[in-house]
Amino acid sequence: MGTIFLHEIAGTAMLLLLGVGVVANVTLTKTKGHGGGWLLINFGWGLGVFAGVYVAFSTGAHLNPAVTVGLLASGAAEYAPGIAVTFGHTVAYLVAQMIGGFLGAALAWLAYRDHYAQEEDPATILGTFATGPEIRNPVWNMITEVIATFVLVFVILMFGNTPSGLGPLAVALLVLSIGASLGGPTGYAINPARDLGPRMFHAVAPIPNKGGSDWGYAWVPIVGPLVGAVLAGLASMAFAA
Amino acid sequence: MGTIFLHEIAGTAMLLLLGVGVVANVTLTKTKGHGGGWLLINFGWGLGVFAGVYVAFSTGAHLNPAVTVGLLASGAAEYAPGIAVTFGHTVAYLVAQMIGGFLGAALAWLAYRDHYAQEEDPATILGTFATGPEIRNPVWNMITEVIATFVLVFVILMFGNTPSGLGPLAVALLVLSIGASLGGPTGYAINPARDLGPRMFHAVAPIPNKGGSDWGYAWVPIVGPLVGAVLAGLASMAFAA
Amino acid sequence: MGTIFLHEIAGTAMLLLLGVGVVANVTLTKTKGHGGGWLLINFGWGLGVFAGVYVAFSTGAHLNPAVTVGLLASGAAEYAPGIAVTFGHTVAYLVAQMIGGFLGAALAWLAYRDHYAQEEDPATILGTFATGPEIRNPVWNMITEVIATFVLVFVILMFGNTPSGLGPLAVALLVLSIGASLGGPTGYAINPARDLGPRMFHAVAPIPNKGGSDWGYAWVPIVGPLVGAVLAGLASMAFAA
Amino acid sequence: MGTIFLHEIAGTAMLLLLGVGVVANVTLTKTKGHGGGWLLINFGWGLGVFAGVYVAFSTGAHLNPAVTVGLLASGAAEYAPGIAVTFGHTVAYLVAQMIGGFLGAALAWLAYRDHYAQEEDPATILGTFATGPEIRNPVWNMITEVIATFVLVFVILMFGNTPSGLGPLAVALLVLSIGASLGGPTGYAINPARDLGPRMFHAVAPIPNKGGSDWGYAWVPIVGPLVGAVLAGLASMAFAA
Repeated sequence: MGTIFLHEIAGTAMLLLLGVGVVANVTLTKTKGHGGGWLLINFGWGLGVFAGVYVAFSTGAHLNPAVTVGLLASGAAEYAPGIAVTFGHTVAYLVAQMIGGFLGAALAWLAYRDHYAQEEDPATILGTFATGPEIRNPVWNMITEVIATFVLVFVILMFGNTPSGLGPLAVALLVLSIGASLGGPTGYAINPARDLGPRMFHAVAPIPNKGGSDWGYAWVPIVGPLVGAVLAGLASMAFAA
Repeated sequence: MGTIFLHEIAGTAMLLLLGVGVVANVTLTKTKGHGGGWLLINFGWGLGVFAGVYVAFSTGAHLNPAVTVGLLASGAAEYAPGIAVTFGHTVAYLVAQMIGGFLGAALAWLAYRDHYAQEEDPATILGTFATGPEIRNPVWNMITEVIATFVLVFVILMFGNTPSGLGPLAVALLVLSIGASLGGPTGYAINPARDLGPRMFHAVAPIPNKGGSDWGYAWVPIVGPLVGAVLAGLASMAFAA
Repeated sequence: MGTIFLHEIAGTAMLLLLGVGVVANVTLTKTKGHGGGWLLINFGWGLGVFAGVYVAFSTGAHLNPAVTVGLLASGAAEYAPGIAVTFGHTVAYLVAQMIGGFLGAALAWLAYRDHYAQEEDPATILGTFATGPEIRNPVWNMITEVIATFVLVFVILMFGNTPSGLGPLAVALLVLSIGASLGGPTGYAINPARDLGPRMFHAVAPIPNKGGSDWGYAWVPIVGPLVGAVLAGLASMAFAA
Repeated sequence: MGTIFLHEIAGTAMLLLLGVGVVANVTLTKTKGHGGGWLLINFGWGLGVFAGVYVAFSTGAHLNPAVTVGLLASGAAEYAPGIAVTFGHTVAYLVAQMIGGFLGAALAWLAYRDHYAQEEDPATILGTFATGPEIRNPVWNMITEVIATFVLVFVILMFGNTPSGLGPLAVALLVLSIGASLGGPTGYAINPARDLGPRMFHAVAPIPNKGGSDWGYAWVPIVGPLVGAVLAGLASMAFAA
């Protein structure tokens, strides 16, 4: 249990530090990467997963409640070698991921502190932490998140059928892919901890001009990814090698 | 036979979901990746293949009639380990790929539904689904597709001579390469299912302002890739290890 | 000898088809990748090497007189498993690479034929085939090519000391690196066949508005790479594992 | 001892040649990569590490005092297979890295000599060699460097717990990640030799209009990375497999 907490908190914090960091770099005022574009953001999140997977390798590097729930739905016996699928372990993963998400956002804010302090647009500040839709329409935004998370979890579950040898790089490229291809409408949460953890940090962070935390949208990047994950877990049974 | 259908439909749908998705993200109105550039599009398609290959790994992950036909022309004995080259299997691959192409386009449309609904330019809408030339000249457009598909199929056939260890990444990078280098004139169909499946979806999709489906061009991204694939299959015989 | 010709011609042609192709895509009029930027060009050339290496794997995939000469200078006993370093083999590699460079340029021109026909700027046309300096100063341009080619050949010679497992990807990323970092002044020929072969094709190609082939500069991308390769071959002896 | 000097000098020089080179390409006047963007810079530095690791593979390819100090703090017994952690070896690594940093900057200047000569902005010239903050606030700039270097050294120390098979590519992608995500405020020194070596070269280089070397900031990219490295070394003990 301690292993799960240690690694999933640290790994998810690493993911969010690098993920929030890249959005801060591209969007906050006066940064070196300002205006760097969508592909830069996609690389930042993809490689944030890459780094996070190394940190949490011994617990299977879920880093994402959707991955944990997807494994559960797929009927897997273990979350990682030596970690059985039990109610207690499931809760430990989910709690650790939320804590890690909050911590990673806090570290990214420390790294960009003066740039946050000088940013005048509340939407830009919130946008570094939480996802939000370009066209607000909660049901359809949720469908986008369902589809994008299905891709994430389904392909991860298919990795096991394949001798790939790419290890952490495979999931990094998959996340890069989802960002490039399916991130356009909602900013690809595809991970409830990636959205809720930093959104909670935003709510308490001492940032001038930060504005509200858009809690009305917060259910979408939770429900969408979880639904997508369950569908992926079920679908994967038909493809078991 | 059921294995071929299941995996080739799912894998080709995955490819088209991510491929149509990235073009939608870069070109449709109000998306986060709007104006993201050609390299972003190339990454989207390349990594769409990457994800699709994992999904269809157990049927050899053709995902493309040009690959199936190229293997046929090369004199291969099997389409994948345990799947002999027969007339029935060949038809199954081709039909499954077309169905997958249609389904993937439909899923991408669902993910970007409101962005399609608010798009006012018919050429932009069609351009997310089907390829089209920048300078319309069917014979030369076909030659471009012949050359680009030759590269795809010939290099895939050469993978077998090489201990690469890259697995699905190798073909992803190859497709990224072809897009970067040879996609300029026609948008690199290099795959009849990639073009015809989504074009059929475009013809029936409930999208306002969608305009016509440019059926007059539709033969080019079918004939060009098939010719290129046959040439590649024949050429590969001279390079067999 | 026939194996060398077949594979080095085909591999170098593949490299030049994709390399000339990406520059055509980024710079010629009305292409889909027009204005795609330097990183896109770097990916195009890097992955052009990637594809070319698969094609010429059984002859060691030199694709470049600088690699052949660097191996010679390093005191290697074989150019590839089973191909001894002899005068005849050396000549075969160099001649095949030049022929391949010419053929690849011709194929790229076929793929972009109508875009060449509509291009009105001679410097843009020549720039797709041959390298040229941004600040013309032949001695310093040559020094830039010496340094960049030293990096290419020296690091390739160091691959052998390392269990990398990346195969063709390693050299692709190395070429991408050299383009990003050292391509700014002269466009990184780093390969006499990459420059001279396409320049010869430019001299004879039926392209309107093509202008002259800038033969006064042609020695720089030959002499610089060969000097860099010899220095790299000699330096590698001090680092032999 | 000679092995350490030879490989760490050469490897760090390779890193700085390619790293300074990419910044020169993106920022100096009249280069082909001018204005190429932050992702291009991130690729240049990441792949500079890639090339440098091959060169210095037999000494563990530290290339960075933060890596050496992080290994020391982690309680490692060896710096590389066969090289024990001793005071003398530690000094050898650090001195070699500084010399390599200076030499690599000098080589990059040679490659871009005429572009440096025609550059009129002193800040641009200095910016190719040394890092500098976008919002000058030394304590917070140092914190950014602490966090970014912690990520670098901590994840490198975690590589050992993981069967990755990516070799030099893993650290290249990690550096690309840190640049994309955490380079925005200070330009990600994350390596005292990467900043101090080239800054010393800047101080003595015969470049017109070069201006001062900003020595008042020079302690930040030394102290920040070393603090981050020690923290990473200590933290890694809790994660030992």
